[in-house]
Amino acid sequence: MKKIINRPDDVVYEMLDGLVAANPNTLKLVREKKIVLRADAPVKGKVAVITGSGSGHEPDQVCYVGRGMIDAACAGEVFAAPTADAVYEATKMVDSGAGVLYLIKNYTGDRANFSMAAELAQAEGIRVETVIANDDVAVKDSKFTAGRRGVAGAILDYKITGAKAEQGASLDAVKEIAERVNANCRSMGFALTSCTTPAKGSPTFDLGADEFELGVGLHGEPGRRRTKVMLADEIVDILMDSIVPDLPFKSGDEVAVMVNGLGGTPTMEFYVVFRRVAAFLKQHDIRIAKAYVGEFCTSLDMAGCSVSLLKLDEEMKSLLEFPVDIPLRIF
Amino acid sequence: MKKIINRPDDVVYEMLDGLVAANPNTLKLVREKKIVLRADAPVKGKVAVITGSGSGHEPDQVCYVGRGMIDAACAGEVFAAPTADAVYEATKMVDSGAGVLYLIKNYTGDRANFSMAAELAQAEGIRVETVIANDDVAVKDSKFTAGRRGVAGAILDYKITGAKAEQGASLDAVKEIAERVNANCRSMGFALTSCTTPAKGSPTFDLGADEFELGVGLHGEPGRRRTKVMLADEIVDILMDSIVPDLPFKSGDEVAVMVNGLGGTPTMEFYVVFRRVAAFLKQHDIRIAKAYVGEFCTSLDMAGCSVSLLKLDEEMKSLLEFPVDIPLRIF
Repeated sequence: MKKIINRPDDVVYEMLDGLVAANPNTLKLVREKKIVLRADAPVKGKVAVITGSGSGHEPDQVCYVGRGMIDAACAGEVFAAPTADAVYEATKMVDSGAGVLYLIKNYTGDRANFSMAAELAQAEGIRVETVIANDDVAVKDSKFTAGRRGVAGAILDYKITGAKAEQGASLDAVKEIAERVNANCRSMGFALTSCTTPAKGSPTFDLGADEFELGVGLHGEPGRRRTKVMLADEIVDILMDSIVPDLPFKSGDEVAVMVNGLGGTPTMEFYVVFRRVAAFLKQHDIRIAKAYVGEFCTSLDMAGCSVSLLKLDEEMKSLLEFPVDIPLRIF
Repeated sequence: MKKIINRPDDVVYEMLDGLVAANPNTLKLVREKKIVLRADAPVKGKVAVITGSGSGHEPDQVCYVGRGMIDAACAGEVFAAPTADAVYEATKMVDSGAGVLYLIKNYTGDRANFSMAAELAQAEGIRVETVIANDDVAVKDSKFTAGRRGVAGAILDYKITGAKAEQGASLDAVKEIAERVNANCRSMGFALTSCTTPAKGSPTFDLGADEFELGVGLHGEPGRRRTKVMLADEIVDILMDSIVPDLPFKSGDEVAVMVNGLGGTPTMEFYVVFRRVAAFLKQHDIRIAKAYVGEFCTSLDMAGCSVSLLKLDEEMKSLLEFPVDIPLRIF
């Protein structure tokens, strides 16, 4: 294994140290609990939005903390849920009395620990609501999930929901839009390679030199099937033929498109994918109102990408434009 | 080879198609010449800034085109200089009469073709000046370079110089700050793996399973030496011990820091690197005024990263904050 790390046991702590060192004015860290918070939390009168998941998906989740998006992110060890105790602690730190929304992706471990934290917080009189993103159309149940998985489409939900909360909406309204975004969002991805976790040091699954894993999960969970290597356009068409009819997205719809790299794929290839996605949507008379191309929710060094579509309404479109101050906004 | 492409010969064209499809309001494309321009070019009364290089380094260079940064980027084939003809064409398209600055990195092919374009443009009465970025301290001469190579530090030069031009500065003033940034910027990187070009389909150089290439070039050019795998902190210290004395950066200086991923490295690891860079600078009483952590100038799918330091003055600090509207600014 070659990685730019020190001890595998320290990698998450050291990543968080680096993140906060790079963003000293906007972030703060509770190191022993691996919680990243916006520096000005709790924000008076504002509903707080908390997310959390295993690490290894950066920029998801810790790079979305900041004004206009996420109030606190609870980082687990690599590919392992954060503890209920950390989530509970984060909840107390961000709540200003207006309530807290947990906005997480559908994995069994995350759900269990956030649910436990919600009970603890509610017992202390903090209002907590939870929305579970499950945008991945690839498979119904999976290694770490009952029902559909939450993948990169959830980032669009963080963006829109975070903006709504920043504008001063009530907990009910913030929860409603988080659910609305999730209900209108669909994603699917594929992998060219496995990823390698620092602790294991070898690929988490085997994939032949001439194979793609179609519908792969964010931790290397199996997808729908293995295919032989295909052209970019062929594989994008398969993704789109799975995503578009699922909602369904229809002629006349306006959408946000996210082409998300899984970690090891060059930026060049994301745009080759986007090109075909755009052509496919044009053919179906679906209008792209907003495009996101880059790495948003990765699986360490996995090569591959996913496509997410979100059917937009006017409120979502406006909230996507709301300014944010997060580590990922660099220039 | 597994890549998300169609025909290798089409990959640059299709990338550019995708880039412009994702940014239809801010970019335009001269496809047959592989020129990406800001949609409103030429901008009346403004000095235009053009860059260009081989493709495969995305987001450098095409994702920096837009208001506040680069007016036109001339993309070559993968790792091959753009043609003089394309640069000449771009020059005519962006010049509004205020003159054009070529801001490129130090590679022999790029220099030759931009120089030829400058002669053609000057023969038509267009004022053209050229600044060559050469921030890489790793080696003096290299496979494609006489003198030092230009690497990721050049992106900070695009940012500052582009802002100066946007503010309406004269060609002389724009050239002066481009030179000033380059003179105060130093970089060095290392690779964990080779990259694989679409045309060749196999790694461009061999690197043992237990080796790092220290001081690697952006096309896999040899660096200073091969080392056995090291801890992140050890390798960062070697980079910093090469970069800091070279300017030298001194106690009391204010700097911008860029930790740049070369393509195949997970975001998690960039922050582990940044953490050690920050600790090193603190120990040397050098203050970080601005941090850039992510992928800015890559080598396709190469695993590895580089560190750049730029010694700042008040004008540079202010210009780094000037707003941009470029594909890389996503949220």
